[in-house]
Amino acid sequence: MNIKITGTGSYIPDNVEKNENFHSNEFLNSDGTVINAPNEVIVRKFKAITGIDERRYAKSHLNTSDLASFAAEKAIESAKINREDLDYIIVAHNYGDVRHDSIQSDTVPSMASRVKHLLRIKSPNCVAYDLLFGCPGWIQGVIQAHAFITAGIAKKCLVIGAETLSRILDPHDRDSMIYGDGAGAVVIEATTEEGGIINHKSATYSLDEAHYIYFGETNNPEIKEDRRYIKMYGRKIYEFALTNVPLAMKSCLNEAGIDIKDVKKILIHQANEKMDEAIVKRFYKLYNLEMPEGVMPMSIAKLGNSSVATVPTLFDIILKGQLENQEINKGDIILFASVGAGMNINAIVYKH
Amino acid sequence: MNIKITGTGSYIPDNVEKNENFHSNEFLNSDGTVINAPNEVIVRKFKAITGIDERRYAKSHLNTSDLASFAAEKAIESAKINREDLDYIIVAHNYGDVRHDSIQSDTVPSMASRVKHLLRIKSPNCVAYDLLFGCPGWIQGVIQAHAFITAGIAKKCLVIGAETLSRILDPHDRDSMIYGDGAGAVVIEATTEEGGIINHKSATYSLDEAHYIYFGETNNPEIKEDRRYIKMYGRKIYEFALTNVPLAMKSCLNEAGIDIKDVKKILIHQANEKMDEAIVKRFYKLYNLEMPEGVMPMSIAKLGNSSVATVPTLFDIILKGQLENQEINKGDIILFASVGAGMNINAIVYKH
Repeated sequence: MNIKITGTGSYIPDNVEKNENFHSNEFLNSDGTVINAPNEVIVRKFKAITGIDERRYAKSHLNTSDLASFAAEKAIESAKINREDLDYIIVAHNYGDVRHDSIQSDTVPSMASRVKHLLRIKSPNCVAYDLLFGCPGWIQGVIQAHAFITAGIAKKCLVIGAETLSRILDPHDRDSMIYGDGAGAVVIEATTEEGGIINHKSATYSLDEAHYIYFGETNNPEIKEDRRYIKMYGRKIYEFALTNVPLAMKSCLNEAGIDIKDVKKILIHQANEKMDEAIVKRFYKLYNLEMPEGVMPMSIAKLGNSSVATVPTLFDIILKGQLENQEINKGDIILFASVGAGMNINAIVYKH
Repeated sequence: MNIKITGTGSYIPDNVEKNENFHSNEFLNSDGTVINAPNEVIVRKFKAITGIDERRYAKSHLNTSDLASFAAEKAIESAKINREDLDYIIVAHNYGDVRHDSIQSDTVPSMASRVKHLLRIKSPNCVAYDLLFGCPGWIQGVIQAHAFITAGIAKKCLVIGAETLSRILDPHDRDSMIYGDGAGAVVIEATTEEGGIINHKSATYSLDEAHYIYFGETNNPEIKEDRRYIKMYGRKIYEFALTNVPLAMKSCLNEAGIDIKDVKKILIHQANEKMDEAIVKRFYKLYNLEMPEGVMPMSIAKLGNSSVATVPTLFDIILKGQLENQEINKGDIILFASVGAGMNINAIVYKH
């Protein structure tokens, strides 16, 4: 028995937020001090480091669970399965439904129950739950689906990553420009077809790293509100990721018994283009190799960092021929990898 | 190989909230109308239906992840394992950390990462994630740990249920008296010892039932705030639970090949004493039997409904001899069962 992704879908929100839209923000340092540069310079520097030109924000009447259901519909359609045959719906997210006019996360019922409701699935045997694991949540959901199928308690699973980080942003924090909204989904099935998940690896670093990404106050000390936002220690995360992600990828690949030269694509969580390049270069360096051109498809310029949605969305748009100069063909070896809040790291070696 | 619970722990907060403490609340109907009864009568009726005398609230400086870590420490101690050998930490909850002075749920990093941090576990191979599945979340965590061990990707897992519902309560809603705070934890291991998890069952009913438990506004129409609270359609839940939970328990038990007469204890999620009694009576009626006396240990009178913490806390206090006239002995067959937001139902047949 092999365990394969048999369908993919994604939902990219309509609202395009270009870098220029931040020219009028009042950006401050995390200690509240003024940044000695005009916004045009701040935004230009931001673009140079992250590679982000624009990102997508969900329309105000839509929430995370809506985005998730749109991506799920497409994945079900693409897998050509009867939705009533699904054994699991796993939704990875980190903040639940945050209405555009609210500061509260709404997590009851779970996003998975909401998605199942929106998909009009009747079968009670389709078990719907949410998974919180930082940005690597969607990959972790795939790993969990793989475990359920291996253990014999599931045959078909729907795994979704969905998030609306636009609802969690501090407008006074430059880092806020990184984030976007989105949803990606896949159907995973037990199959006799060749390929599928060959190996996977997960890790949680929390002794010193647990609070590298956290919920914190605005950078603007003049605002006296009891409200917190997504915050991060960017420099620490960069160093952490560069040290640990290449090693995790290598260990995952070696255990799979796959030669690095057979890896066709690396689909890595996209938070920062420079960081991703540095990670993948270092990964190849562990094998004394140069990073091959085109091995790391990037969607960050147009989509920003949409958290758990990034990797499944990237996979979907490549398969559907929507990412220029990128393709994945039958039999290709792909490495999925992610790093994020927790701090969590994971990777999957996959044969398409 | 068997998969057994090898250690248990729970944390019961110090602050006792007695029913009398609600005598000065202004309770209103969900449509905002006045309830034509003095609070003493409202509270007396509440007690008659739910069986709740008092519940526990966490001290203001503690959050869900703190409670979780206290229960986890005890479970690790009781299992006599080296915490560095844990492969997974799974924390079931529904609202994350909600500080006593905040209306925001803080879910990044995950509760599991926070717990792992608080437990000072170094090993990155211990994967920490959160699971959202309504009140049945802790049982679902046990089912997931079981799947990971069966699939060969884990040997030892820590599964925690923790919640601070006291931070999500509408003081104008009588239903708020149901809820309390708490945490329960177990260590689950692959073992050659006899017994353990024999069978399990999970279900999600979301077509009509997804929003039976939801996040809603205060019952007091005079309060103009953008804040939502835990809310439920009690009557619908009662009917839903009575129809579906006994059938799920029966199906789980029958598939396990266990005679109902061999069931020593039923540890069911405690939201309402009358409802639990009706469920278990109906369960026995499916076998044309009367419910045996003492088969359903209850902690609700003193602890209220502490969501995901209820079942593991109950199990722990029975094993430690802290629940009057109740005991569980080696070899006893136990049925764990739960129902809650989603709407989710699950059950485990377990040999102690």
